[in-house]
Amino acid sequence: MAQDYSELLAQHRERIETAVKAIHDRSYYAAYSDHPKAYKPGSTELGKQKFDEQVGQNFEQLLQEGASTYKGEEVSPFTQEELGIKYPIFSVDKLVTKATQSWASWKQVKPAERAAILTESLERMKIRFFEIAYATQHTTGQSWIMSFQASGPHAADRAMEAIALGYHELQRFPETVNWQKPMGGTNIEIHKTFKAIPKGVALVIGCSTFPTWNSMPGMYASLITGNPVIVKPHPKAVWPIAIVIAELQHLLQELGLDPNTIQLAADSFDQLLAVELAEHEAVKIIDYTGGSSFGDFIESLRNKTVFTEKSGINSVIVDSAADLRLAMRNQAFCVSLYSGQMCTAPQNYFIPEGGIPQADGSHVSYEDAVGLLKNEIASMALNPKMAGALGTIQNPATALRAESAKSLGTVVLNPPKIKHAQFENARVQANTVVEVDASQLDAFGQELFGPVVLVVKTRDTEESVRLVKQLIAEHGAITCSLYCIDAKKAAAITEEMNEVFAPVSLNFTGFAFVNQHAAFSDFHVTGGNSAGNACFTNPEYLQKRFVWVGNRMLG
Amino acid sequence: MAQDYSELLAQHRERIETAVKAIHDRSYYAAYSDHPKAYKPGSTELGKQKFDEQVGQNFEQLLQEGASTYKGEEVSPFTQEELGIKYPIFSVDKLVTKATQSWASWKQVKPAERAAILTESLERMKIRFFEIAYATQHTTGQSWIMSFQASGPHAADRAMEAIALGYHELQRFPETVNWQKPMGGTNIEIHKTFKAIPKGVALVIGCSTFPTWNSMPGMYASLITGNPVIVKPHPKAVWPIAIVIAELQHLLQELGLDPNTIQLAADSFDQLLAVELAEHEAVKIIDYTGGSSFGDFIESLRNKTVFTEKSGINSVIVDSAADLRLAMRNQAFCVSLYSGQMCTAPQNYFIPEGGIPQADGSHVSYEDAVGLLKNEIASMALNPKMAGALGTIQNPATALRAESAKSLGTVVLNPPKIKHAQFENARVQANTVVEVDASQLDAFGQELFGPVVLVVKTRDTEESVRLVKQLIAEHGAITCSLYCIDAKKAAAITEEMNEVFAPVSLNFTGFAFVNQHAAFSDFHVTGGNSAGNACFTNPEYLQKRFVWVGNRMLG
Repeated sequence: MAQDYSELLAQHRERIETAVKAIHDRSYYAAYSDHPKAYKPGSTELGKQKFDEQVGQNFEQLLQEGASTYKGEEVSPFTQEELGIKYPIFSVDKLVTKATQSWASWKQVKPAERAAILTESLERMKIRFFEIAYATQHTTGQSWIMSFQASGPHAADRAMEAIALGYHELQRFPETVNWQKPMGGTNIEIHKTFKAIPKGVALVIGCSTFPTWNSMPGMYASLITGNPVIVKPHPKAVWPIAIVIAELQHLLQELGLDPNTIQLAADSFDQLLAVELAEHEAVKIIDYTGGSSFGDFIESLRNKTVFTEKSGINSVIVDSAADLRLAMRNQAFCVSLYSGQMCTAPQNYFIPEGGIPQADGSHVSYEDAVGLLKNEIASMALNPKMAGALGTIQNPATALRAESAKSLGTVVLNPPKIKHAQFENARVQANTVVEVDASQLDAFGQELFGPVVLVVKTRDTEESVRLVKQLIAEHGAITCSLYCIDAKKAAAITEEMNEVFAPVSLNFTGFAFVNQHAAFSDFHVTGGNSAGNACFTNPEYLQKRFVWVGNRMLG
Repeated sequence: MAQDYSELLAQHRERIETAVKAIHDRSYYAAYSDHPKAYKPGSTELGKQKFDEQVGQNFEQLLQEGASTYKGEEVSPFTQEELGIKYPIFSVDKLVTKATQSWASWKQVKPAERAAILTESLERMKIRFFEIAYATQHTTGQSWIMSFQASGPHAADRAMEAIALGYHELQRFPETVNWQKPMGGTNIEIHKTFKAIPKGVALVIGCSTFPTWNSMPGMYASLITGNPVIVKPHPKAVWPIAIVIAELQHLLQELGLDPNTIQLAADSFDQLLAVELAEHEAVKIIDYTGGSSFGDFIESLRNKTVFTEKSGINSVIVDSAADLRLAMRNQAFCVSLYSGQMCTAPQNYFIPEGGIPQADGSHVSYEDAVGLLKNEIASMALNPKMAGALGTIQNPATALRAESAKSLGTVVLNPPKIKHAQFENARVQANTVVEVDASQLDAFGQELFGPVVLVVKTRDTEESVRLVKQLIAEHGAITCSLYCIDAKKAAAITEEMNEVFAPVSLNFTGFAFVNQHAAFSDFHVTGGNSAGNACFTNPEYLQKRFVWVGNRMLG
């Protein structure tokens, strides 16, 4: 019954094992280059052509049958026009039934062969990286290059990471063992078999800003561990992940497997499917990326294995710097990139009223420090070579939020009026910088997703640390930046942040950005604070999706 | 500040690494022999002497200060007399405060050195195995030999397993890495450090039947991962684990560490501490062994990492046998051992009305099959050489439950009247065997902890399998026995059971018993069904107790 995938395994084994090693070394590794020029000439043009061909058409690439209707609600933040792509819509019952049926064949495939099949699916996805980039750009509003990197190679790397770690964990214990216990003169001999039993139907709930990067890790982690997967994307960002799913379905069919092992559960705002899917008895695993209130609901469900990435408030503690201007230039990029719509983007800058000492013995006053941050942010937005990195604002509500944040304190920087170089209707918006007082915990103790930066004036670094630690403990954080040139002090502050499970990026300047978590090396989200309970590349991220069962037979 | 434990590590490293290897090979390994004769001559006598010295006295071996009072409620099931040992009682606030204070020093100890210290604590415990055996016998009611094995070497092996797996997981990723990403002509270089941050105060809630075996795995798993631990034993079985904790406290003090890293939280029925401890905000990890209703409460607590071993209903499917008499003789031992008070003991026997084919072509009728089971159980209880294995009934309620189970169906075996050879007041009770019909799901769908066996008459094996699978899905199971000499059929039934995450023991006869889960090889509880969410030696059992955090610094 089960086919032989050993040839595919032979083809991909080395790549998978290289990835396993990279995860355990945590050294630099990329399965897919994030430089567009590393790919075949003409790829960009072909991607654009595929993009143009799909716009305005029903999405017919999936192998799922029995759609009740077709719907689509995507709007390009660059043109502010509807994409006019409609996706097949399925009932929850149909999706779950088909997932359950597909399980029988998928769980019979040996873990190593599953790994080979899933690796092959990334090779197929690779051919469509450029098309996915355009689809991402015009749903999420990211710049084209960020769309390419995040939704293409970086997402594929994160998926590869899940495949590799699954491959390792699933084969960690031997399939069979002859266990012999000495009993006086004789041995008692028991033949044991160990099996990793998948938990059941897995659900992945995607977000509107990173439709493949945030969905593929959970999707591939559940697949490698033998579970059938249903992906419910955000109705505003379906296309990129729909391409990935379609490729996977065609590959499964080619290999004689059930394409419904992976399904797209597109929905629309008039009939959202997330709650019904999440609460379905057959759904045992849920991966969720999105806001905290729905995330808290997902976490509260009983008898489900849940992985969440919710909102957090990322802070920057400024104590001292080698060169504060370079530090602030680096930070200006971090907050400008995709206009602060990354889960890893900094929001709050804690700067002591006494100002910032620099390595050369000079001192930058508090006012000048704020001025440096403000100027670097403004000049990035106004610099034609850099402004493209801002991309656009995915959701109109995000732009409004930035506007209303001005009432929180003293406006340090009114966002410079900018226009997109290429799309005249693009929903672009530069950062607003608002200064608040250390006493205004309500103001900076909320997530202001989007192009808003708060500067919090503190008495001293000690107060900064205390406030940031409190913020993280109460609201969670995915990243924390620290500028401090006193090594001992930096170590002590890092320890404080680590106690509330926030990772610290110290003295980042130049091309090292706190926003970027590298696959195979950086854990993404620690899982320790309320920003989420999931952690990419933590072995737990794979292990919780299956159950070890040992059967015994008298030898 | 942090002391150097490298000498201790040098002393124990090989042993720890042997254990790591054994877990990954899942081959036979025992760090401690379970044969009393393997220990120093005179050990039994010395243990008995220590036992006699403690009876009637306050337990003064702990290094915990500030007891509010002393209480003790242990009663020997062998003599039905109070032991008269009183333990110091502490307020929850005091326990949690001291645990939190001790954390500072314990988490600074390197994982490998923590492993060495904890291994050393088992060496100290080993010297007291015999005393612990007597303490276990006269609190749990187990036979002396079972008390010795389960509470001594087997419990120490399970603790060693947690130490070893923790040692492996905590050192799985490098402490530091220089990460270099090629960027065109240059490299971007980031110095990364990876730390396993312990989650916080850990609570272990013990049971009355296996005071060390069921508490030590969670206790050592939390300790090796850097968390301070509070152990709240069952008020009726404090002594055995109190000895283990006292040894650990003295060792920690000798090594310049805070003895409060591990604390005993004895309580009494007039003021139980479990709820207050479990709900305390500072308590982040809970290991629980006991009944399902309190276990469900523990599992429902938000923001806690919880490991439970609750009740389950273990079944035996009888389809066919090489020699049914030998199968039933084996099973008679399984249900008789400690009078069915093991979490792994079988309860329900599913026998088809058409009877049982045997390997030699003969056929045993349904009635004769039930008769074999009944006779083997009865003769074990009446055989003076075997009866000792029954031990006594820990809790008088268990004896009553067995009596009232008679009303569930047709009584096949009224428990033979037996007396203990050595203790005339011992609360001994042989098994009751009751026959029920396959339609009586309410009767066999409840856990009847203790000396009760139900025989369920089914239409055929297909019905047996369907009923057992349903039982496991709804109520959970820790073990499942199968007698089936058709290899293909046995494999199919095993797969059905594994789908509801129950491990199968096939055709066990002789000295292989379904009740016994071997350390380093057998997973204990799969964590997949409602019998509990914990699984000893599953890497998850360690990993969920700490959080990986990666800090980054520009190189």
